[in-house]
Amino acid sequence: MKRTVFFVSDRTGITVALLGQSLMTQFEGLAFQRHTLPFVDSPEKAAATVLAINAAARADQVRPIVFSTLVNEDFRHQLRQTNALVLDFFEIFIAPLEAELGVPSSHAIGKSHGTSDDGQYSRRIAALNYTLSHDDGSNLEGLDLADLILVGVSRSGKTPASLYLAMQFGLKVANCPLIPEDLERQTLPDALVPWRRKIWGLSIRPERLHQIRTERHPDSRYAALAGCRHEIQAAEAVMRTYGIPFLDSTNLSIEEIATTILHKAGLERHTY
Amino acid sequence: MKRTVFFVSDRTGITVALLGQSLMTQFEGLAFQRHTLPFVDSPEKAAATVLAINAAARADQVRPIVFSTLVNEDFRHQLRQTNALVLDFFEIFIAPLEAELGVPSSHAIGKSHGTSDDGQYSRRIAALNYTLSHDDGSNLEGLDLADLILVGVSRSGKTPASLYLAMQFGLKVANCPLIPEDLERQTLPDALVPWRRKIWGLSIRPERLHQIRTERHPDSRYAALAGCRHEIQAAEAVMRTYGIPFLDSTNLSIEEIATTILHKAGLERHTY
Repeated sequence: MKRTVFFVSDRTGITVALLGQSLMTQFEGLAFQRHTLPFVDSPEKAAATVLAINAAARADQVRPIVFSTLVNEDFRHQLRQTNALVLDFFEIFIAPLEAELGVPSSHAIGKSHGTSDDGQYSRRIAALNYTLSHDDGSNLEGLDLADLILVGVSRSGKTPASLYLAMQFGLKVANCPLIPEDLERQTLPDALVPWRRKIWGLSIRPERLHQIRTERHPDSRYAALAGCRHEIQAAEAVMRTYGIPFLDSTNLSIEEIATTILHKAGLERHTY
Repeated sequence: MKRTVFFVSDRTGITVALLGQSLMTQFEGLAFQRHTLPFVDSPEKAAATVLAINAAARADQVRPIVFSTLVNEDFRHQLRQTNALVLDFFEIFIAPLEAELGVPSSHAIGKSHGTSDDGQYSRRIAALNYTLSHDDGSNLEGLDLADLILVGVSRSGKTPASLYLAMQFGLKVANCPLIPEDLERQTLPDALVPWRRKIWGLSIRPERLHQIRTERHPDSRYAALAGCRHEIQAAEAVMRTYGIPFLDSTNLSIEEIATTILHKAGLERHTY
């Protein structure tokens, strides 16, 4: 029996979908059909949402689960009339917060992400531009401006982690591969040495690196398991020599890599 | 009177911070000091969290607000003993979900983001690689593989939106500027014409474009307000000619631009 789950929002739906997903992972054996309904900000869209929920209830012959962050009182009331388990974040959280803070909430649709009106937006775009222009060792100028520098062998996950740190946390992140010449000489690239205090390393298990590289370059020397193993050992040795902390990215999501480094480096956390 | 707000998580803390932030925006006049405490996954870290919360209560002389997604029963119990308003997401949501679904939850720490173990991760990395290699018109090959193509004048927000769509939703997004030659001729770049059904445009208000360009190139012809106005008018005319839908990015966050296009284009929404 498949359950339909709706994530309903008057804005992007990103927050409600993330929280809902993470709650649903607590029920691993069950099958869910997920639908995100963003921008439910008019009576027409609220009515369409109600219809969609009730239609799913009829089709599934079991009531859907609805996670909602709608702020509008009237739309929330309509949602509660559907044939569904409605988990209304606004209702659940706003009442205790109002009581605690001693002031009424604004009941305005939330601005949870930075827009062009505020300095946060400029900071974030500047971080992204810096990070893009310092990807994969393409530019070793201006490293004094980097909040972080990531190093590691090719395909250890530096680029996604760098972009996530820039996008989500507004950090300027350069990343630079450790190439065979560096590994042979057992040295960091010269341009990085002065900045080793803000360098973090990514390592990875050889079997996983072999698998990733094989997807792109099957049967190449670059992808061979023995070579991967040798490169990783040499890279970890370089990082130890220079006192560069590193983590194993093998079983981590992009979010986990980024957040772990942010946290361990003690950097201020902006959320957009 | 400043209130301290804690976002406590046994994982990255991204979800709890996003939801907490969006709730706090309902209380705009108040000042909050935010702290995210991620990876609270050991008795030692749970104890340190309790100490930090109680210390803030003493320092502020008012109890802090704690948003928690901790799963561990024992740590949650310790949190409830602190001198704080504790909003325990697990407790609030898991009980009604268990009752509704008729099965107990796994009580395992949630895996809310895709990791290397699943196909989602490969999809996401492939999307990021595609998007990076098709940024800013740098590569007009392989557009048949794009899920979306964004166009717009220089600095209208194409790159951040493309990267967000790739990172958050696993989409392959190419982006291409409309340059003065295109605007002069009132045509799309030739390579884009066959794909116009999957092209979306970004526009922006001239005053805002002028401001953004001035930050990078003060007093340049490129940044002059009259030129910005002319370019935007010409770009919108091209988009109308080819039936390309476009949106005004001026007051939208990166998340809003990305989600609006995703939603209007009717693309499947993956969440990582």
